[in-house]
Amino acid sequence: MFEDRNPRTELSTLGEFGLIDLISKDIEIKNISTEYGIGDDCAVLEANGKKILISTDLLIEGVHFDMTFTPLKHLGYKAVMVNLSDVAAMNAIPTQITVSVGVSNRFSVEAVQELFSGMKLACKKYNIDIVGGDTTSSQKGLVISITVFGFAENTDIVFRNGAKINDLVCVSGDLGAAYVGLLVLQREKSAFIVNPEMQPDLEGNEYAIERQLKPEARVDIINILKEINVKPSAMIDISDGLASELKHICKQSKTACTIYEDKIPIDQQIWDTARKFDMDPTLCALNGGEDYELLFTIQQSDFEKIKSIKEISIIGYITDESEGLNLITKNGVSAPIVAQGWDGLK
Amino acid sequence: MFEDRNPRTELSTLGEFGLIDLISKDIEIKNISTEYGIGDDCAVLEANGKKILISTDLLIEGVHFDMTFTPLKHLGYKAVMVNLSDVAAMNAIPTQITVSVGVSNRFSVEAVQELFSGMKLACKKYNIDIVGGDTTSSQKGLVISITVFGFAENTDIVFRNGAKINDLVCVSGDLGAAYVGLLVLQREKSAFIVNPEMQPDLEGNEYAIERQLKPEARVDIINILKEINVKPSAMIDISDGLASELKHICKQSKTACTIYEDKIPIDQQIWDTARKFDMDPTLCALNGGEDYELLFTIQQSDFEKIKSIKEISIIGYITDESEGLNLITKNGVSAPIVAQGWDGLK
Repeated sequence: MFEDRNPRTELSTLGEFGLIDLISKDIEIKNISTEYGIGDDCAVLEANGKKILISTDLLIEGVHFDMTFTPLKHLGYKAVMVNLSDVAAMNAIPTQITVSVGVSNRFSVEAVQELFSGMKLACKKYNIDIVGGDTTSSQKGLVISITVFGFAENTDIVFRNGAKINDLVCVSGDLGAAYVGLLVLQREKSAFIVNPEMQPDLEGNEYAIERQLKPEARVDIINILKEINVKPSAMIDISDGLASELKHICKQSKTACTIYEDKIPIDQQIWDTARKFDMDPTLCALNGGEDYELLFTIQQSDFEKIKSIKEISIIGYITDESEGLNLITKNGVSAPIVAQGWDGLK
Repeated sequence: MFEDRNPRTELSTLGEFGLIDLISKDIEIKNISTEYGIGDDCAVLEANGKKILISTDLLIEGVHFDMTFTPLKHLGYKAVMVNLSDVAAMNAIPTQITVSVGVSNRFSVEAVQELFSGMKLACKKYNIDIVGGDTTSSQKGLVISITVFGFAENTDIVFRNGAKINDLVCVSGDLGAAYVGLLVLQREKSAFIVNPEMQPDLEGNEYAIERQLKPEARVDIINILKEINVKPSAMIDISDGLASELKHICKQSKTACTIYEDKIPIDQQIWDTARKFDMDPTLCALNGGEDYELLFTIQQSDFEKIKSIKEISIIGYITDESEGLNLITKNGVSAPIVAQGWDGLK
């Protein structure tokens, strides 16, 4: 008889993608300078024929990074990379960022400078201009918000929705390393809590830790693709894990895909370390995330151009939507790909 | 004999502007698409002759807003306005925003929708497209980061640095109201803490409260200036208070100014309420901030075009740098203008 006039739905019931869907479903585009809004790695604005690519990321202490094992300089570097990667994922070169930082009085001027020194190092290496931002205090913890810009010709931009049946699925670099790096760092943190006298045992895990703390945006791959004259049909960067990103490309392209487990590039050291943690290395690659490698599809006719590029692996092909996303395991068994991804709202 | 190898300088010793100076002093511009970086209301990027204006603001609960008296819908509305105002301050019309939100699990889905409903209302009213963003959890409190975009012809853009000696100093609307509104809300909050049975007494303070909770960006003034064919020589929006903004314009234009106290526009209701709080209404206008009115300078030859515009007051004139910033009080006494502003880092 009495209705609850103040219904309360927990954010965890929706998750990040559900919340984005809910918020964005009634957003209509009104300006002709808006070419593409929400739904890809970047938004696209239009100015006299030139396209401006825009992406933004919000990083919050305790959610996206753990200050007990993240040096401020590395954090600054990574915060920039996460954003540059989004512009690369549109097949474009990032050129500018704005940086907003909220800091509690726990941080000193020197700490803020250290954070910015990492950002500036990233900008120097990738030829990026810091053009604006905002600095403010926070009641608790560190908040970093970065927005990135890149310019592109209309014909060069690659969205997530262009994959066609029989296109080859490609990935740059290797996968799963950032997640394994996180496992190593979390293990050392736990050991340190038990015994603060302990020295961290990071030997043999340098690569994993570097991939977690200091990832690189694959702008180099965009340049290589331009050089060999290959334009991907669809592209995304791997922030949430291979499985989640495959789902995005297939959903938006109205296709599915078949991926071969033995083709997924995993570094040998990462493989061994994952095993020590009793983790399946393939699952680390599928669901670990934070690799910031590029996942893209190309026409079969581009195979000859791609096959000799050391930094690119062909891991499968695009299929009809009705076939579903499948992984052909090393035993030759076909299993559906399930995206667990990483959801900060759960 | 021993040096402190880990010097710690408190953020409060620098303040926000000091910190920005420190961070930005070694930033060099490397891309030709970067026309103007840090230092004005917006950065300016270049694309085939069209200019893109960009500004960004980070709002943090407990620092920029108090959830005990800020309805989420108003907060969303205001967060958008603060940004639109920055594009207007460059003499341009804002057209797009990106919105990033970090929320703790204290917030429900309905609460986030309420926040966005305020943002969407603002966007509808000002014809703005929401083109992207990020949603994430936070460990504590609410974080809002908005970046705004506008397009302009090169010849239309107005920076802070163009004021010339003898130019007239103009301001839109009236000042001090948002600060007085904050005083009223804080008084009611204190009374509520003492006696939770109490009903808030907001009568007669509707205008002050509206100016605090639901400010408007003066995009209408930009349209009026275009209609009467007046291009300001310098412009800024009043977020930190008239005194602070006058300082910015004069410093960047290498000038000073003389302002007449009796010309500063203050609403009669605001005047009376300030007096009830034992506050000097002129000081509320000079140092209160959050008015989001436009402060600009025009050539004397534009006086005839401006004088009949009801929404614009002429409050003084630009002088030589050596004369300093002065207020001619109602008693005819000249007093130096001191900017206390509002500093979130202090």
